[in-house]
Amino acid sequence: MMSRVKVSELSRRTDVSVASIKYYLREGLLPSGTQTANNQAVYDDEHVRRLRLIRALVDIGGLSIAQVRRTLTAVDDEAVPLHDAFGAVMHGLDSVPETEPDPLDEVRTWLHRRGWSVDDRAPALYRLAELVATLRRFGFGGSVDEFDSMADTVEAAAGVEVQYARSKPDRTAAVESMLIGTVVYERVYAEIRRLALESASRDG
Amino acid sequence: MMSRVKVSELSRRTDVSVASIKYYLREGLLPSGTQTANNQAVYDDEHVRRLRLIRALVDIGGLSIAQVRRTLTAVDDEAVPLHDAFGAVMHGLDSVPETEPDPLDEVRTWLHRRGWSVDDRAPALYRLAELVATLRRFGFGGSVDEFDSMADTVEAAAGVEVQYARSKPDRTAAVESMLIGTVVYERVYAEIRRLALESASRDG
Repeated sequence: MMSRVKVSELSRRTDVSVASIKYYLREGLLPSGTQTANNQAVYDDEHVRRLRLIRALVDIGGLSIAQVRRTLTAVDDEAVPLHDAFGAVMHGLDSVPETEPDPLDEVRTWLHRRGWSVDDRAPALYRLAELVATLRRFGFGGSVDEFDSMADTVEAAAGVEVQYARSKPDRTAAVESMLIGTVVYERVYAEIRRLALESASRDG
Repeated sequence: MMSRVKVSELSRRTDVSVASIKYYLREGLLPSGTQTANNQAVYDDEHVRRLRLIRALVDIGGLSIAQVRRTLTAVDDEAVPLHDAFGAVMHGLDSVPETEPDPLDEVRTWLHRRGWSVDDRAPALYRLAELVATLRRFGFGGSVDEFDSMADTVEAAAGVEVQYARSKPDRTAAVESMLIGTVVYERVYAEIRRLALESASRDG
């Protein structure tokens, strides 16, 4: 347990500028500190953790402040079941496009066949359908069923990750774990993929 | 083979606005059309393909116009070996950060052990090292070796993709294939992963 510290020390420990911390306080993303006798606010471990979560959402997830607020509201509301809080994180990472991409129904049917249960307004559902449309425009890819082997791999890993997140001692830690699992590992995969492609293109 | 068409028809066929086409022409990203007797420029299939490639780089790859120019220069220069042109596409997708992330040497050693040959200034090398640092900051992930199983899967797929790209009839088609393989499929993977996580978080 960290002793209570002033905003300057909170900034030093989290590598978030004092100006940003004050902005998050004003916007209500970060709870107020405790007022001491000499009218100075002090902060504790909870503030460190919350700042870390905000920065992960902004820096890694690329969320706007409005999206961070929506996500944190779901995280903080104990009445929201944990799986809905996970959903809020995932939905907060992207938005649903205004037009329905053509292969949307195909993707829905595919998910249904796989027995995956996702919100009908999940941004990832729309984005995947858009990507299928893009692939087809470039003469790539036929049936959505071609994603099955990729999905098999991902499905097994996702189950493990969710179990791991659920095993965390509290909601903030669980959601943080889910967020890192989603956003950081998908970038890790993408970068490893680029390295593999570069290496393969040098061979022979 | 498409007959030669006016800029308005080129715009209609590619879904790229006339203003954007004229901008790409001015910036030298798109070769000039052929002047007809009545001093009107007409365009052909090559322009359609080049526009499609520019839009893929911008819309899917998120490249700036300067980055598109650098990438297309490598694509167009027949003196540049094809694997360097593939490298230019992959390097164009991201930049090398100014500071060296702490785990950079670990990632280099890991790639070396795997026998992957990548440019020492490959952006993906730096980005992966940054992600390792992020994971550690959040108390996730230990050794880089934990990525081995992910890398095994990716390695096999990358070989197939590069072979497929190389089998294309010309450089533009090969590079386009490599770009789609890199950028679109990494997004496909990410979206399927998000759907799997959402579904898994609903279970039980």
